[in-house]
Amino acid sequence: MEFTFTPLGVSAAQPAYGRHLAAHILSVGPESFLLDCGEGTQFQFNTHGIKRNRIGHVFISHLHGDHFFGLIGLLNSLGMNDRKEPLRVYAPPGLEEIIEVQFRITQSGLPFSLHFQALDPLLVEKILETEHVEVHSFPLAHRAPTLGFLFREKQIPLNIIPDAIDRYGLTFEQIRAVKAGEELRLADGRLIPNTELTLPPYRPRSFAYCSDTAYKEDLVPLLKGVDLLYHESTFLEKDAEMAAITLHSTAAQAARIAKLAGAGTLLLGHYSARYPDAGVFLEEAKPIFPNTLLSEEGKVVEIPLTRSGSR
Amino acid sequence: MEFTFTPLGVSAAQPAYGRHLAAHILSVGPESFLLDCGEGTQFQFNTHGIKRNRIGHVFISHLHGDHFFGLIGLLNSLGMNDRKEPLRVYAPPGLEEIIEVQFRITQSGLPFSLHFQALDPLLVEKILETEHVEVHSFPLAHRAPTLGFLFREKQIPLNIIPDAIDRYGLTFEQIRAVKAGEELRLADGRLIPNTELTLPPYRPRSFAYCSDTAYKEDLVPLLKGVDLLYHESTFLEKDAEMAAITLHSTAAQAARIAKLAGAGTLLLGHYSARYPDAGVFLEEAKPIFPNTLLSEEGKVVEIPLTRSGSR
Repeated sequence: MEFTFTPLGVSAAQPAYGRHLAAHILSVGPESFLLDCGEGTQFQFNTHGIKRNRIGHVFISHLHGDHFFGLIGLLNSLGMNDRKEPLRVYAPPGLEEIIEVQFRITQSGLPFSLHFQALDPLLVEKILETEHVEVHSFPLAHRAPTLGFLFREKQIPLNIIPDAIDRYGLTFEQIRAVKAGEELRLADGRLIPNTELTLPPYRPRSFAYCSDTAYKEDLVPLLKGVDLLYHESTFLEKDAEMAAITLHSTAAQAARIAKLAGAGTLLLGHYSARYPDAGVFLEEAKPIFPNTLLSEEGKVVEIPLTRSGSR
Repeated sequence: MEFTFTPLGVSAAQPAYGRHLAAHILSVGPESFLLDCGEGTQFQFNTHGIKRNRIGHVFISHLHGDHFFGLIGLLNSLGMNDRKEPLRVYAPPGLEEIIEVQFRITQSGLPFSLHFQALDPLLVEKILETEHVEVHSFPLAHRAPTLGFLFREKQIPLNIIPDAIDRYGLTFEQIRAVKAGEELRLADGRLIPNTELTLPPYRPRSFAYCSDTAYKEDLVPLLKGVDLLYHESTFLEKDAEMAAITLHSTAAQAARIAKLAGAGTLLLGHYSARYPDAGVFLEEAKPIFPNTLLSEEGKVVEIPLTRSGSR
């Protein structure tokens, strides 16, 4: 099953050097999640061939314009294209009013149901569980109330070793029980341990989105062992003072969080317009956390599906 | 003095085929006016090298999203870049509330003063006079209250025939009077007619913007003799029924208005996503009104400065 993250906008605050505003797609199997929705997100969907109707859930980290001004246009276009599936939007309080006032004044509406869930910017809480993932929101440290989002894949059912079904003459019910991790009791009373019947389990994958935050070391326990960590790196260390004033992070700070959390991969993004070439962020982060990547618009980052080495 | 019109977005309703949403710049000498501001207008400024700080006045024809969703992002970016000059926004009632609620909820503001002028969608009225132009708004026929805008250049002062100053020994005061059209009384009592002292006057130029309207023949007297007429052509005649339902125009209808009004040039725009190639609009309009052009993003249409042939 696919578990991919695709940045669509990597610029901070304003578009610059062809870089667009914050928007990212996380796809887990058939489920797609939109993380932030800066102005022009619907254009980026077109540019990068994203199927917008697959998105069922939108997560807005905070109410700075570069993270949500594209939502009203996206909703409008979904409506014009006769979307019927409901859409859920998770955001700090206030976004619903911003969207609703525009529908009211323009005397327009949507042909699908739109649900807003106002998030508590001070809590770590589970905000969504779908067929494939659980999503938690958690507080970040920024000038506006800001939330990060942690996606954890649910356990994928075990795969039965191909010849075990024939060897033991498993019934449909027994197959279901073995896939769920149970042992097998044979007609002659013998007990076959589950590990002899199944392949090593898939390792559930995880992804964390830390958009717009100052260096916040108390995130580390929450991010422990995350496979892919998106962490903003608006500035370089030489502009650490600007980062401190604006409550943003440097590339080095993002790398330190990734290192402390033992993340699998760090993905940098949200580059300030003062840096024409984003390569400088990678240079700064890699000595601290070698497995660092740069967010590039439209470039898919995949977390591969692997099996646990040990049982 | 420059008198140019530059379309930045030519798509109706939604972005399609690389076409962006409604936004246009009219430049008259040092003055720049923004006509409509769909999502992504600030990106189009970057793409086409438009100096956004030259814009002092924004005209929003109506409150459909494809004509104003880009305003909040543009304002935000102007603010981040420390604009100090005031900005005036002319729009049907309601836009101020939409913008204000976003500043209130996001607890942000602007470092320049922003004035909204709510326009009466039923009146023809003068809404602005600057150093170089007078602007009137006028009602269009669309599903939302919608206004067109007519820009008339003010009379440019007369040019004195180069050797007249020396020949008559004109004082600074006499020069000013002659430029304003007065005759010259010489010391010996002789009266020199102004036409003997000045070059033929410049012809004041005019531009009309008819965005989102059904065929509306009662516009013709207002548009009489306009140099450049921008008139939407969302559909072709084969989809005239859709045009009637949605209160839009066909290319042929736009051409008929241009013909009846005796416009100098017709500029088509606001193309529906059902037509991948905008060339079809030109084909339909030209037999009715030969001097028709297609709006192309970033392509400047100039109205040249000419002198009146006769005095």
